[in-house]
Amino acid sequence: MRRVAIIAFGGNAILPADIKGSQEEQFERARQAAEQISELAKRNYDLVVVHGNGPQVGNLLLQMDIASQLISPFTIEVADAMTEGSMGYMLQIWLENYMRKLSLDKEVTTVLTPVLVDPEDHAFKNPTKPVGPFYTEERARGLAKEKGWKIVEDSGRGWRRVVPSPKPIDVLNKRIIKALVDKGMIVIAGGGGGIPVVINKDGLIMGVEAVIDKDLTASLIARIVKADLLITLTAVDQVYVNYGRPTQRPLRKTTTEELGRYLQEGQFPQGSMGPKIQAAIEFLEDGGKEVLITSTKKIKAALDGRAGTIISGGTP
Amino acid sequence: MRRVAIIAFGGNAILPADIKGSQEEQFERARQAAEQISELAKRNYDLVVVHGNGPQVGNLLLQMDIASQLISPFTIEVADAMTEGSMGYMLQIWLENYMRKLSLDKEVTTVLTPVLVDPEDHAFKNPTKPVGPFYTEERARGLAKEKGWKIVEDSGRGWRRVVPSPKPIDVLNKRIIKALVDKGMIVIAGGGGGIPVVINKDGLIMGVEAVIDKDLTASLIARIVKADLLITLTAVDQVYVNYGRPTQRPLRKTTTEELGRYLQEGQFPQGSMGPKIQAAIEFLEDGGKEVLITSTKKIKAALDGRAGTIISGGTP
Repeated sequence: MRRVAIIAFGGNAILPADIKGSQEEQFERARQAAEQISELAKRNYDLVVVHGNGPQVGNLLLQMDIASQLISPFTIEVADAMTEGSMGYMLQIWLENYMRKLSLDKEVTTVLTPVLVDPEDHAFKNPTKPVGPFYTEERARGLAKEKGWKIVEDSGRGWRRVVPSPKPIDVLNKRIIKALVDKGMIVIAGGGGGIPVVINKDGLIMGVEAVIDKDLTASLIARIVKADLLITLTAVDQVYVNYGRPTQRPLRKTTTEELGRYLQEGQFPQGSMGPKIQAAIEFLEDGGKEVLITSTKKIKAALDGRAGTIISGGTP
Repeated sequence: MRRVAIIAFGGNAILPADIKGSQEEQFERARQAAEQISELAKRNYDLVVVHGNGPQVGNLLLQMDIASQLISPFTIEVADAMTEGSMGYMLQIWLENYMRKLSLDKEVTTVLTPVLVDPEDHAFKNPTKPVGPFYTEERARGLAKEKGWKIVEDSGRGWRRVVPSPKPIDVLNKRIIKALVDKGMIVIAGGGGGIPVVINKDGLIMGVEAVIDKDLTASLIARIVKADLLITLTAVDQVYVNYGRPTQRPLRKTTTEELGRYLQEGQFPQGSMGPKIQAAIEFLEDGGKEVLITSTKKIKAALDGRAGTIISGGTP
């Protein structure tokens, strides 16, 4: 029986803080991710892969800033498009290699993904997401004045730009993504949460400088392709309540109803598990069957029911 | 009646040498290109768009070089993937806007395109294509030693790396591109000639540092999607014989047989018109109906038969 899965993971799965980040190292991480992901293809899932791009777009914005005397830098949504290229390529090549190794007749492709956000989203009035290089206070104030950026002091490490993080509401090329998944192809889409665009007052689609949460985009794409399963990879093997406290307790099987209660209690902070839980609930309330939250290393065990947190719709 | 066209143009259509190259300027050039291209959609053509990336990948390699003390630079084929992202995005957004303006029910997408080349291609023994920044002789010799690059002195402007320019032989995600074209979607593919990959001794697909001629890739994709028409945009309004000489003469209607003769006479130099003519002949000899070579500004006139060079198969 044909089943559709979406798998989402952070950019730090490919470029973690603890590696120098050479091209070889990033390709090796992409290979490892592709090997784990191919486990789903083996189990007959049609697949969409959604990756984050935090460390990668940070590096790119820094490169463009350092070279800005010579070459006009691009804004963040063009940089997003570029990381959909570089990261998509690394994952695509390795997924293609694994499909051949497994003799699975699936082509792999990366699809550049503009994602519509609402220009009236309250995030535009309150930018909170730090992006790009750390600056000295002087340079940051200069850039803020010159470019209209909002800047913040980031926990003693320097000054940084913050951009809005609006909610994704539609995918411009959604029929294309669905058509390819329906043909059994592996689609890498929504990388970095997608390229944020709005429809402006003249009715034109235009990019905006913002960052979309990749878990929310994954949940949106999951609903578009009518996925059965949404898999969210994270640093921990499963979801915990009272995380980091003596009363910490793993959640192995839970429901949207139970999770909704924990979310309201403030169990899942906005910076980390919050958007993943929110994405899970939205997906399940819109017809999705199951959400799996686990770490990259536990995918196989989790698919066998031996690890991870499984969330299903409704009450326990 | 459904017809399929491929349109190919150089990266300098979006980033010409005579502009500073701000993001705004590049988007405006992308808008102009999209406006011209949409003329084909209006005339009921299904479309694949292939763009070059020379100036864009040059800028990116320079940015990565300037920042290389802080961030490991990527090699050229990853940079190619990144320009498929940035340029694809600019074209995709504007094509999407024009499709909406024309009320044409076509989604637009950019598809990251790995293109297979032969590791035994003689180009790998004789790299000739200059890429990336100009260096001082000292820095160039240092990089040549450190990275095994081949370098050349480029007409008094400094030292540059040269890379192989092998012939494209297959497109990894060709079924995906064909499926989308068959659904009437507009596909941006093979940007920069595609991302060059080989199958190595272990049977693995791996990227290689090379540049594929975008006109040859366009011709290959044209054959994959069984296109009727291949349009090649260039700086001149039509093909000439004895170009730049007093006996210069425009070719308005010609055949592969006639062009093949001129090509052998050396009428079309390798650096400019040569690959376009070669791409045209390959396409027409493999079942294509017609090739149109013209400038961006003359697309509409050429489609009406009032400009450009039309090439058809066979003898005149």
